[in-house]
Amino acid sequence: MEEKISNLGELGEFGLIKHLTRDFPLSQASSIKGIGDDAAVLEFLSGRTVVSSDMLVEGIHFDLSYAPPQHLGYKAVAVNLSDIYAMNARPTQITVNIAVSNRFGIEYLDKIYEGIRHACEVYEVDLVGGDTTSSYSGLILSITAIGEVDETKITERSGAKDNDLLVVSGDLGGAYIGLQVLEREKSVFQANPDEQPDLSAYQYPIQRQLKPEARKDIPELLEKLGVLPSSMIDISDGLSSEALHLSDSSNLGVRIYEDKIPIDPAVIKACEEFKLSATTIALNGGEDYELLFTIPLEDHDKIKGNPHFSVIGHMTEAARGRMLVARDGAEVPLQAQGWNALSNDNDSPQQD
Amino acid sequence: MEEKISNLGELGEFGLIKHLTRDFPLSQASSIKGIGDDAAVLEFLSGRTVVSSDMLVEGIHFDLSYAPPQHLGYKAVAVNLSDIYAMNARPTQITVNIAVSNRFGIEYLDKIYEGIRHACEVYEVDLVGGDTTSSYSGLILSITAIGEVDETKITERSGAKDNDLLVVSGDLGGAYIGLQVLEREKSVFQANPDEQPDLSAYQYPIQRQLKPEARKDIPELLEKLGVLPSSMIDISDGLSSEALHLSDSSNLGVRIYEDKIPIDPAVIKACEEFKLSATTIALNGGEDYELLFTIPLEDHDKIKGNPHFSVIGHMTEAARGRMLVARDGAEVPLQAQGWNALSNDNDSPQQD
Repeated sequence: MEEKISNLGELGEFGLIKHLTRDFPLSQASSIKGIGDDAAVLEFLSGRTVVSSDMLVEGIHFDLSYAPPQHLGYKAVAVNLSDIYAMNARPTQITVNIAVSNRFGIEYLDKIYEGIRHACEVYEVDLVGGDTTSSYSGLILSITAIGEVDETKITERSGAKDNDLLVVSGDLGGAYIGLQVLEREKSVFQANPDEQPDLSAYQYPIQRQLKPEARKDIPELLEKLGVLPSSMIDISDGLSSEALHLSDSSNLGVRIYEDKIPIDPAVIKACEEFKLSATTIALNGGEDYELLFTIPLEDHDKIKGNPHFSVIGHMTEAARGRMLVARDGAEVPLQAQGWNALSNDNDSPQQD
Repeated sequence: MEEKISNLGELGEFGLIKHLTRDFPLSQASSIKGIGDDAAVLEFLSGRTVVSSDMLVEGIHFDLSYAPPQHLGYKAVAVNLSDIYAMNARPTQITVNIAVSNRFGIEYLDKIYEGIRHACEVYEVDLVGGDTTSSYSGLILSITAIGEVDETKITERSGAKDNDLLVVSGDLGGAYIGLQVLEREKSVFQANPDEQPDLSAYQYPIQRQLKPEARKDIPELLEKLGVLPSSMIDISDGLSSEALHLSDSSNLGVRIYEDKIPIDPAVIKACEEFKLSATTIALNGGEDYELLFTIPLEDHDKIKGNPHFSVIGHMTEAARGRMLVARDGAEVPLQAQGWNALSNDNDSPQQD
């Protein structure tokens, strides 16, 4: 999988950190001092600072037999930043802690940091600190993301109001079905290593799984449209689980209409092939990192017809429950099946 | 070692986070919102924000066969806060990411969080976020600490001046020799499980290893004495390694006098028993989490005779090198032998 060309021990811990972080310039005004002291020094002149932390564990959150190291580094950052965007905030800094066993060579770590650096460029955040250590087993990435936001613009989970529209960005289910494709191809490969898989038909769902993007553009777009969501959350555990979080935190009921859930045609096709319900996958698949938010009814015109948004339902009085309205009109209670990190399934990392 | 009474999977990830963090009230003025949304919300009205991140990995940084879970949780926090104090800052928040395999029961995790909570109380910091996940192997704790400091009071590694005095808090070498005692007793126990070890003579070094304190009191004391260090670092990898960091960052030489290095009598006694040089242990042992700093010569009177401080040397022109002046007057170049996390030794976690 990876070549162990250089011995990590030879570089030493300080040498390794220096090596891995050599190409990370500071670009944020709030980054006063980055790596190289006991702590990074930041300056937030006004507004609120938001902080979120996530861990990605080999064998739980990723499988190195099909996750390229560059994508892994990129994804680890994107997943963390997604939480910052879900607060309607602008991420500014990250710290990266990494634990690796000595089966990893420096070249392999370089590729992970290439992905981290690429994500730092795309999302305009500075790497300002971190820790490198060995582990006796797998690879673990633990990232903390910091961001800033005007006090008046923070979108918490608890702000939804009765009758608010429930809106989701992008489309759902891709990351999960992409994972199923990768798992299937892995089994095929293990059975017959000479077989070359043709994955061209699955490009979109596979990319959603291996190199998801955080929706940096959505808070920017909403700002431009003059829409301030009343509540917002990112979809890491599936639409159903996240809608329930908004409902719980805001003490409201929620209705999601099955026929409004956005699913890409390539995802629908792959679901058919796997004999899985695309709706179920969109509801419970997770790892899509789209943003789910509520807006007042009167803002509907501002987002109507925008290809980035789908209005999939609305908030209700708590007494009306949390329901999926199926295509045939039947109402089914929403359940947080999600992927549970502690049941040892593949799972998306999650800050509660 | 630990009883697996409750199955973690039953609680689920959200249930587990909720359970583990139920007794963590917010007490810091800068903590606007803690656990329960996509990100914590903080407010730093003035000054600078400092951030530091560390990872503790089972089998590398701790051995659960003798590290009680409460101490482990406490130590993980203290080790991180030590970096914040080394910036002359006041820690305000932490986030805790934890990965556990299913051999750990909820009762065991509760004890770890008991230690984390105790540390939050002692050091007056708020737990504001984190992630809980499973791992296929050991226990991993990744903590990010955030703090605040007036811009004019930040003590970086690079601020030392020629002729500045080199001062260390507390005493050195205890944590390392404590670890040797614990390793020896573990071997004895493995050979003969009925043998009850008498560890009373080693109480101090064992406590230094298992439940180290971050020196919260030192920045406070220095402030009271009217002393602003020109540079500061915490001792996680041994005096020698940290003195070299100050020397490197400040482009100066350094002289440390062997006979001035503070070592507790219990540590000296244990070193004799293990036939180890107490000086070597103090220089290279690590994990003492004392503060090493430089002050202008004219501030000497302010700290002279204070039992918390030992003046152990001074900075010099770079050309004079980095030397240990032995008891017999011989000069030996300082070397950063430290404990290297990447050579798979037991190691202290370290942010560079």
